[in-house]
Amino acid sequence: MSLTNATPLEVARAARIGSRQLAVLSTQERNAALAAIHDALAQGKDEVLAANAKDLESANKAAEGGTLSASLVKRLDLGKLGKYEDMLQGILDVKELEDPINKTTARTLLDDDLTLSRITCPIGVLLIIFEARPEVIANISALAIKSGNAAILKGGRESSNSFAAIASIISKALASTAVPSDCLQLVQTHNVIADLLKQDTYIDLCIPRGGNKLVRYVKDTTTIPVLGHADGICCTYLCADYPADKATKIIIDAKTSYPAGCNSTEQLLVDTAALTTTLPTVAQALLQKGVSLRCDPASFTGLKANLDQHSANLLQEAGASDFDTEFLDYTLAIKTVPSLTDAITHINTHSSHHTDAILTLDSAAANAFLSAIDSSSVYWNTSTRMADGQRYGFGTEVGISTNKIHSRGPVGLEGLTIYKWVLVGDAQVSAEYGAGGRKWKHEVLADEGFARSEEEREVLRKFRAGKQ
Amino acid sequence: MSLTNATPLEVARAARIGSRQLAVLSTQERNAALAAIHDALAQGKDEVLAANAKDLESANKAAEGGTLSASLVKRLDLGKLGKYEDMLQGILDVKELEDPINKTTARTLLDDDLTLSRITCPIGVLLIIFEARPEVIANISALAIKSGNAAILKGGRESSNSFAAIASIISKALASTAVPSDCLQLVQTHNVIADLLKQDTYIDLCIPRGGNKLVRYVKDTTTIPVLGHADGICCTYLCADYPADKATKIIIDAKTSYPAGCNSTEQLLVDTAALTTTLPTVAQALLQKGVSLRCDPASFTGLKANLDQHSANLLQEAGASDFDTEFLDYTLAIKTVPSLTDAITHINTHSSHHTDAILTLDSAAANAFLSAIDSSSVYWNTSTRMADGQRYGFGTEVGISTNKIHSRGPVGLEGLTIYKWVLVGDAQVSAEYGAGGRKWKHEVLADEGFARSEEEREVLRKFRAGKQ
Repeated sequence: MSLTNATPLEVARAARIGSRQLAVLSTQERNAALAAIHDALAQGKDEVLAANAKDLESANKAAEGGTLSASLVKRLDLGKLGKYEDMLQGILDVKELEDPINKTTARTLLDDDLTLSRITCPIGVLLIIFEARPEVIANISALAIKSGNAAILKGGRESSNSFAAIASIISKALASTAVPSDCLQLVQTHNVIADLLKQDTYIDLCIPRGGNKLVRYVKDTTTIPVLGHADGICCTYLCADYPADKATKIIIDAKTSYPAGCNSTEQLLVDTAALTTTLPTVAQALLQKGVSLRCDPASFTGLKANLDQHSANLLQEAGASDFDTEFLDYTLAIKTVPSLTDAITHINTHSSHHTDAILTLDSAAANAFLSAIDSSSVYWNTSTRMADGQRYGFGTEVGISTNKIHSRGPVGLEGLTIYKWVLVGDAQVSAEYGAGGRKWKHEVLADEGFARSEEEREVLRKFRAGKQ
Repeated sequence: MSLTNATPLEVARAARIGSRQLAVLSTQERNAALAAIHDALAQGKDEVLAANAKDLESANKAAEGGTLSASLVKRLDLGKLGKYEDMLQGILDVKELEDPINKTTARTLLDDDLTLSRITCPIGVLLIIFEARPEVIANISALAIKSGNAAILKGGRESSNSFAAIASIISKALASTAVPSDCLQLVQTHNVIADLLKQDTYIDLCIPRGGNKLVRYVKDTTTIPVLGHADGICCTYLCADYPADKATKIIIDAKTSYPAGCNSTEQLLVDTAALTTTLPTVAQALLQKGVSLRCDPASFTGLKANLDQHSANLLQEAGASDFDTEFLDYTLAIKTVPSLTDAITHINTHSSHHTDAILTLDSAAANAFLSAIDSSSVYWNTSTRMADGQRYGFGTEVGISTNKIHSRGPVGLEGLTIYKWVLVGDAQVSAEYGAGGRKWKHEVLADEGFARSEEEREVLRKFRAGKQ
């Protein structure tokens, strides 16, 4: 990894060249680089924590001066018990994952001695723009190398000392591996994001990891494809038949286990029939946890009559914008819906297509909901907070996508790959086929493992040597 | 299908609402709509051809006046022997393809009674901008309905009478089916492309089918993801060991079978060692077919000395821009490369990442090439003209993508789908897991067919009825 003050054009071009070398490294070579990064960061812990302490000092001053939030300061701290070790373990976890590239995912015999294969490969060059957490740089570096992608990293300035220390250690560690140093570049120049976003000739995918404002800015500014989500407006739909105890358990988790998370529920839709039965139990539990309930007229009236006086006084009337707002806080909008159809229509219109859930014992209603809701993740009888790469079994995630193409929901290594079509023949040509000519066989073949011969590896080594 | 003069915003919003109804139709319902379209277009042939004759008349006048090319006029003609029947057969072919949506592509047991499934689904709303060929409207309609996507179609004005006739017949045919009419809309208003490209709230994917200028305009103008390719600069790399007869056969096909095709070879890279051996044979055949050869200095000198006098006089010296040009004509740029590494580097820098081929008997070199070339399709010993959805066995294609994400190379029905994550539980919540709590099982399960119960279908029918 290089720490660079080069221009965005130079950075992007160098990453592109490096990416072609990285793309042809073997699984073993990429895993060896991950092991080297892990070991170097383990040895360099004191150095990194000393740099992190500087960032923390500046951040604490800024927090005292009121220009930085206390929760952001907390996110900067790499010295917190277990955090550094988690970062190190994360690199080893990624190393242990199955190699996502060079997998044959389809094979077709087009004709005798003419075989088409679809083989997974890296996307190319990633641009990762992220905010304060210093450990992200290690996570992203591991994911990029494992998936064979070059990555340009641009982090928030609050962690600049920590980033520089980590990047410098990674850089030294990579020098002894097969990974070209230009494959990972930490951009240290200020005010270059706009220019980086213009490098669509060299950068293939941009992943902004940060708040709504950053993501919207990136999406509106660049013609590079963007993977991620701006909003996490998740809805939970409570049907009248669902038991109050389970409903309470799920909704409390969905709203209060981490209100700042993008997968927290922001809107509760309630069957009219549940207004005076299940909802009061759920609402009481939410109010006890300190959640503000912003109720539409029907739920407001229903709850007013069915809560104790103190709780009823805490209810608020929802404004129109409350059903298009990501609160990221102990606030929940409640809307009454007369039917499943209304719930589906409301969610497809007002949710951010991130994660939406139905709570019901009726399997026909549930399956209709799962089918009709147009969101990345759709749940039946569980909490929207489940939307997470680690929980889904991906080991780790680069983010959660609400895009409609490529990769949707939590994005793991697979989302950092694409495929190429490989066609191997023996001088067959297009004009031989069609009217009166040869016929296509189009026979689906079993997938075959992809293995490189030692000769091929030698040729690839020469290719890399020629270009480094 | 409706023929509409509504505003782009109204068109896009209606398509979005329609798309949610279409997404939950059964395979049978979507196939029945394709059968209805097929039958209606078969019956309405005279009506369509009469409208097409009007377009042809205007086009011929424009061609005489020099404002339209003769080849474009040819592409307008639906009355050409077999063309209308091919269009009809195309609809039936799409109907017979496997349903691309509602397929379970992965299943994981996260914990007891907590199962995660990845299920394919439509993308949503497609915007298809296309040029003159009138049959495209029928092809695209079939692909959109089959994949459960709504489509907004905006065609070139040269075919406006044909488009209107086809659209009107499709519209009447769909009225008796379960497909809502707003799912297919033919926009007839002029000068609305810029405004359509702004509807990123409602449109999920844009597919421009036309020349480089149209595609570049679309890519530069919209924040909607764009699928397609602007250029088709394909390269063929001829190694010295490859037999001259096979090389000639492949390169003649790659250059001359359809020079206007995006998959035609525009650049021939030649091993230094082949300059005076194989290349003269290949060059002689190309010159006989009327291909202009634009040679770099080494190939120019090599060929000059090894062709007969007449042929040698036809050689041209390549200019710098010839190695970044899509000729779409009987023109081929020839470049000498001293090594495989140089060939790979040249192609990764100058090709448009569409389709590139190596001709060699050396499997190590070939596999290194296939691995190192960063293009949608990479070939060994066959013609770049093979890059085509029908040839790949997709039945049909919506275009060829040089994108690095989502879908690459010829794009069939699969490229019009995405997936959603469906999680079914029994009141498990996120806070139960992790440090000291429950452990994730993350057990990979066999894929299970996706089947809807009659009850679920009934609920979905009600949902659709409520919204239509």
